[in-house]
Amino acid sequence: MILVVALNPALDITYRVDHVDWAGLNRPTEVQARPGGKGLNVARVLHALGADVLLAGLAGGHTGNELRSALGAAHVPAAFAETAGPTRRTFAIVETGRAQTTMFNEPGPLVSEAEYATFAAMFTEALPRSSAVVLSGSLPPGLPASAYAGLITTAALAGVPALLDTSGEALRLGIAAGPAIVKPNLAEAEAVTGRSQRGGTADAAAAAADLRSLGAAAAVITLGAAGLLAVTGEGTWLATPRPVSGNPTGAGDAAAAALVHGLVADSPWAERTGRAAALGAAAVAAPVAGEFAQADYERALASMRVTRWDESLCR
Amino acid sequence: MILVVALNPALDITYRVDHVDWAGLNRPTEVQARPGGKGLNVARVLHALGADVLLAGLAGGHTGNELRSALGAAHVPAAFAETAGPTRRTFAIVETGRAQTTMFNEPGPLVSEAEYATFAAMFTEALPRSSAVVLSGSLPPGLPASAYAGLITTAALAGVPALLDTSGEALRLGIAAGPAIVKPNLAEAEAVTGRSQRGGTADAAAAAADLRSLGAAAAVITLGAAGLLAVTGEGTWLATPRPVSGNPTGAGDAAAAALVHGLVADSPWAERTGRAAALGAAAVAAPVAGEFAQADYERALASMRVTRWDESLCR
Repeated sequence: MILVVALNPALDITYRVDHVDWAGLNRPTEVQARPGGKGLNVARVLHALGADVLLAGLAGGHTGNELRSALGAAHVPAAFAETAGPTRRTFAIVETGRAQTTMFNEPGPLVSEAEYATFAAMFTEALPRSSAVVLSGSLPPGLPASAYAGLITTAALAGVPALLDTSGEALRLGIAAGPAIVKPNLAEAEAVTGRSQRGGTADAAAAAADLRSLGAAAAVITLGAAGLLAVTGEGTWLATPRPVSGNPTGAGDAAAAALVHGLVADSPWAERTGRAAALGAAAVAAPVAGEFAQADYERALASMRVTRWDESLCR
Repeated sequence: MILVVALNPALDITYRVDHVDWAGLNRPTEVQARPGGKGLNVARVLHALGADVLLAGLAGGHTGNELRSALGAAHVPAAFAETAGPTRRTFAIVETGRAQTTMFNEPGPLVSEAEYATFAAMFTEALPRSSAVVLSGSLPPGLPASAYAGLITTAALAGVPALLDTSGEALRLGIAAGPAIVKPNLAEAEAVTGRSQRGGTADAAAAAADLRSLGAAAAVITLGAAGLLAVTGEGTWLATPRPVSGNPTGAGDAAAAALVHGLVADSPWAERTGRAAALGAAAVAAPVAGEFAQADYERALASMRVTRWDESLCR
């Protein structure tokens, strides 16, 4: 079983409007509300890949109940510790006439120590049945930046490897706890390593090497449409997909799902990086985050270029 | 008891953002979620006035549950027939740096005949205990435009007078059913009567006279900051408040609450119009719809000018 942590899940609400009157009243032509947040996206993709998955996290209020119902309807096994504060919403306005999207992210509930302790007990209880742990997304207010580091340490004591995908101080402290894989995007990686953000592959490789030296066994940096770069103890791989157009939200989560799937299967890194980049590309082609079409995944895999990368090639 | 109908209530969500990035990600500095819609605002104001009130309507899904909880916490008695579709949301983004508000209104659930029949039975059952009925706001998808007309007729057969505050075809058909009071704003009144919208008091008086000739016993037209005009069988009154600044959302609902309160108390029309305009002004001064401060109400009442209006004065 893969244990996916969602400490700050969200109810993602999307409105489509032809042309927005920013000073007036608008009537959306389409309204969608679905569970979201990085952890949930990873869990849904793993579930679609056929993996045995358990989503564990924090949820509260009526939005939390809506999350539970929707995951139940999607048959994604989930267990949440209840928070007094309600699960946050995110709100996206897609202005179809201008192809512009405006996003609003609520911060999430203030989590108490007792509420987190209930979650932590659920997490620890699930570890003996888990072959890997995924720690994805932002931390809600009230939790220390060291929360992920603590969970990585607890998992390691139970012999369970962790994949970490977050940002800022939670990423920095989490890496120091020694995750098996850390998977930031380039901006998140460079914010932690202090490197300048020029965005080239050599920069990504240097940032990934820094992340490894800070404590991660392997560092995979997602590069958007350019694919991803994995720097591991066995070498460095660059996976470059054919260009796809679509919605990049959730592409990193699909890549994370593929990476942990490969970790559990102990597949070679060349295969893991190719599958992760292909699943990311398939997620871009899907209209909503946390989903992909098998045909898009297979098409992306068939045209994927995975190269063993040597920094000396760039000099 | 005053029976207030809410066929298409809403969960009103408000985000405050200093400066909105319309092409990017925003983090609201303040998030509010509260029950809304015209019927709910009327019921809350009546409850604050000390009236015995029952809110009856349609609600569904997790947003419907959130509505029920919030009304329970506010001690507003409410009974909802369950709809399979979820209660709608409205979203308001208040950009504080530009004092600009963007509104998004969801349409509401598609209501089935069986769901409406359950509501109608609750409505009919409550009539013997009711001294007046308020029918306020839009109709959800699935209901015929004649829904309010039907409820007005049912109430009349039980000897219960109705106040109607809606727009369009539902307003036109509802007026023909003979409500005791109809309370549109000038634009809504003129849309039904087909009169041009120049906005003067004489236009409002002519539109109100049309509404009476179409079937309403009395027509009260709200004029925004200029107050309101009541054309009744006993004469015509114009209530002009002192200017107030604030949020006009819910001001018409506060005026409707005062009007039905005066109807039940059988107070003179001069008093009813003054109190309705004053409560509207107090609602403008309050930060959220459906609320007012007693001190604002008393201040507005003390400075209210109510004049018996004679069209000949304008010639």
